[in-house]
Amino acid sequence: MTQKEQKPRTAISPTREENYAEWYQQIVRAADLAESSPVRGCMVIKPWGYAIWENIQRVLDSKFKATGHRNAYFPLFIPLSFLQKEADHVDGFAKECAVVTHHRLAPGKDGKLVPTGELDEPLIVRPTSETIIGASFAKWVESWRDLPLLINQWANVVRWEMRTRLFLRTTEFLWQEGHTAHATSDEAVVETMKMLEVYGDFAENWMAMPVIKGEKTEGERFPGAVRTYSIESMMQDRKALQAGTSHFLGQNFAKSSGIQFTDKDGTLHHAWTTSWGVSTRLVGALIMTHSDDDGLVLPPKLAPSHVVILPIIRDDGSAPQVMEWCRTLAADLARATYDGRPVQVEVDDRDLRGGDKTWQWVKRGVPLRVEVGPRDMAQNAVSVSRRDRGVKERETIGRDAFVSGIVALLDEMQDDMLNRARQFRDAHSCRIDTRSEFESYFASASQDENVPTPIHGGFAWCHFCGDPAVEAEIKNLLGVTVRCLPLDAPAEEGKCVWTGRPSARRVVWAKSY
Amino acid sequence: MTQKEQKPRTAISPTREENYAEWYQQIVRAADLAESSPVRGCMVIKPWGYAIWENIQRVLDSKFKATGHRNAYFPLFIPLSFLQKEADHVDGFAKECAVVTHHRLAPGKDGKLVPTGELDEPLIVRPTSETIIGASFAKWVESWRDLPLLINQWANVVRWEMRTRLFLRTTEFLWQEGHTAHATSDEAVVETMKMLEVYGDFAENWMAMPVIKGEKTEGERFPGAVRTYSIESMMQDRKALQAGTSHFLGQNFAKSSGIQFTDKDGTLHHAWTTSWGVSTRLVGALIMTHSDDDGLVLPPKLAPSHVVILPIIRDDGSAPQVMEWCRTLAADLARATYDGRPVQVEVDDRDLRGGDKTWQWVKRGVPLRVEVGPRDMAQNAVSVSRRDRGVKERETIGRDAFVSGIVALLDEMQDDMLNRARQFRDAHSCRIDTRSEFESYFASASQDENVPTPIHGGFAWCHFCGDPAVEAEIKNLLGVTVRCLPLDAPAEEGKCVWTGRPSARRVVWAKSY
Repeated sequence: MTQKEQKPRTAISPTREENYAEWYQQIVRAADLAESSPVRGCMVIKPWGYAIWENIQRVLDSKFKATGHRNAYFPLFIPLSFLQKEADHVDGFAKECAVVTHHRLAPGKDGKLVPTGELDEPLIVRPTSETIIGASFAKWVESWRDLPLLINQWANVVRWEMRTRLFLRTTEFLWQEGHTAHATSDEAVVETMKMLEVYGDFAENWMAMPVIKGEKTEGERFPGAVRTYSIESMMQDRKALQAGTSHFLGQNFAKSSGIQFTDKDGTLHHAWTTSWGVSTRLVGALIMTHSDDDGLVLPPKLAPSHVVILPIIRDDGSAPQVMEWCRTLAADLARATYDGRPVQVEVDDRDLRGGDKTWQWVKRGVPLRVEVGPRDMAQNAVSVSRRDRGVKERETIGRDAFVSGIVALLDEMQDDMLNRARQFRDAHSCRIDTRSEFESYFASASQDENVPTPIHGGFAWCHFCGDPAVEAEIKNLLGVTVRCLPLDAPAEEGKCVWTGRPSARRVVWAKSY
Repeated sequence: MTQKEQKPRTAISPTREENYAEWYQQIVRAADLAESSPVRGCMVIKPWGYAIWENIQRVLDSKFKATGHRNAYFPLFIPLSFLQKEADHVDGFAKECAVVTHHRLAPGKDGKLVPTGELDEPLIVRPTSETIIGASFAKWVESWRDLPLLINQWANVVRWEMRTRLFLRTTEFLWQEGHTAHATSDEAVVETMKMLEVYGDFAENWMAMPVIKGEKTEGERFPGAVRTYSIESMMQDRKALQAGTSHFLGQNFAKSSGIQFTDKDGTLHHAWTTSWGVSTRLVGALIMTHSDDDGLVLPPKLAPSHVVILPIIRDDGSAPQVMEWCRTLAADLARATYDGRPVQVEVDDRDLRGGDKTWQWVKRGVPLRVEVGPRDMAQNAVSVSRRDRGVKERETIGRDAFVSGIVALLDEMQDDMLNRARQFRDAHSCRIDTRSEFESYFASASQDENVPTPIHGGFAWCHFCGDPAVEAEIKNLLGVTVRCLPLDAPAEEGKCVWTGRPSARRVVWAKSY
């Protein structure tokens, strides 16, 4: 107890160290990002959380368009028979399908409304859209001239999850799903890798979240895919989070959906398809990569507001001048363009205690807080606090220098956040070559589910023989899986950390979300 | 037959006159906007159609934000018990609900997958979100300081329609739904009218579609609303289309959802709420307001592309120079900003017959087509065709004058389209004061459903006693309803066109979609 009292006060309780899972929930609440809804497993995304998602959408959408994709929209419902066209695919999703069976309500025997109008064929609320989009592609593609077909959809999807967590795993979530068809296997593979690159670029340079790009093992492959690639990121509890996936589907879905084209030589072929997606899970990744024990920390490029100006209002009649000064400052800042949009500035003139106001913006993760009072005005200066530094830290900057340097300052903060996250990940990554070391690296201090797991482990780069049975055994014993076979892992002869069998390169093992 | 042969050839068959309903379907197909899907009543919105919707979203979203609203996202599913909280509301939607009753699939007796995991309470796929958003508002609102609460959601909704038509009436559609809560009835009414104004402004100044703003009669009111307002537009078959609605909900939903706040004086009150929405139906309205017998005609402000450049390539070695000239022209045009975005230019260098290419862009409704061949280049000129004029019409304009005048030209076309639509509506609107005139104005030439209804009638401004039974009778006899009680109809003593009872102002009667 004495120890606890000596700790510096933090805005979020418990801290990351005390109980990481609960800390996450408290961040979501304190930053006013989302909340549970009365519908099991479905969340309400609140305005501040949704504004982050809108920024994610804006940037990704322009990247998709720049790479030649066009948006379209396909039905929410998938007839059961469509889902069944690809055998692995339906196996993968059968256990988590929301099923529509009726199309109206009418009073039952006791007068209460009950479902009626039973459908001839049940409809599945899309968990993903390969099969229903495949039906359109089969109509749209006739000749090689129609290829490549490069489509993206922004949509909601439903996967009936038993254990849900806001943003990270919810029954309904928002996402984008790219679906493309190509004339050759090579072209489809190029597309698969190109979109993995787009995701990696977005994660690192917009989310300030370093990622490892690599292929998934058979056990973690998308149901129906030939190969699945992902970007994997380390959260602050040292667990991996899969933040985006890109699938090379071969001809599996083209065959089950009948996507065929006549080639230049007049012969008929099945197309080669890909799909790739990221979801509102990215907001969870953003939270867990950067936030601290005082609340959310947002990378400037995705922050709904870049700067909040907090006028210091005293009862000395200075209020009108202070407010005027703040509004002019806001207008001057907003004239600058940062990452394609005007610098977003809010002046918080609410009638609230200064401390409450400041803490609200700290918890919401706004990159820069600027306090302005008569003293600052007299010096033509502002008192600036960066959200990625200590809450009490502030720097006095000349007003005009602050305005002219705003973009550089936001850039610097964005870079610092990426570097810090990269350092964190690298500090908690290691090469492990023996089974005992591997076991102790990942062994939990407690097997009791009610005791929060202490933060330990990280990314272990190890040799692996590739045997799915071995991966299953390790998952079972330690709760650890191969996150990916990193694309840029150098060729290196070695022996499997578990079986001693030969291996050609290291893979990344970790606990994961 | 001789007559038919003498008619000028049109790209769309049948023409509006020959069969308006079928003409509409053919426009949607020829412009590659959307198509039916394998799911009953659900459409696939194709890239060109979706790009129009994205433009609608972009403009409306900025208007919503400029009026203080923030976006958020609420669950797709509504528990049956929530829908039932407001009695009129559930009555209004019970007959068109998609109901989720199970949450997984498992092999049945014959080995085929069947729904299993029955839910304790059925979930309704949202037909609208008042009740589920109300549950959040009840949590978010505590004191007068939390009001007004101004939220918007972009989402898909499902209403199980028996007769569907692409964009105009589909089982699933995309829309936005605004939901707001206020401290007083007056403030909620102001909000209701403000958003009606936003819709009217958007319809007239972006869609180039004149609208009448007014209140709906009791029979056409949103289930659960105190008052419903709409914008009503005339399509080219002279029927009315309701293009957007704004509802003053009074305290009905606040009471059923428990949205209460403590006022400054410490007393507890129910809030006053509103809701308002427009949907992908607007794309249907756009089509039917402007398109002609050669295809879609798009108002420049919502066109995915403003200008398509068609290089005339001959086998004389001039191709590289022509292409270079076209690309430079495109780059110069794209430097101009029209309605907040760069002028959108496409250079169509596909290896297709010139006629086919041109007709494709005509049918897709691109505002300006520009042909460029060696002759034009020699004169430093371009040959420009406006989509709102005859397909064969073209004007030679100096290249630099065309570039410097591009924004003015698009503006002129936008204005011309609005004026033309307004003239059409006014030409088919009239004041009717006798029952016999009213009956003959709206009487169909044929009662046979298989014979396309000839285009006739229009908007009849008539006195009406306001009796719902009379409106029902007229609807039954003639298929005509009161579209709205126009807000700007002048006070004018008169007698009901049907009953002779006294009336204080005219209302608008029409057949409708």
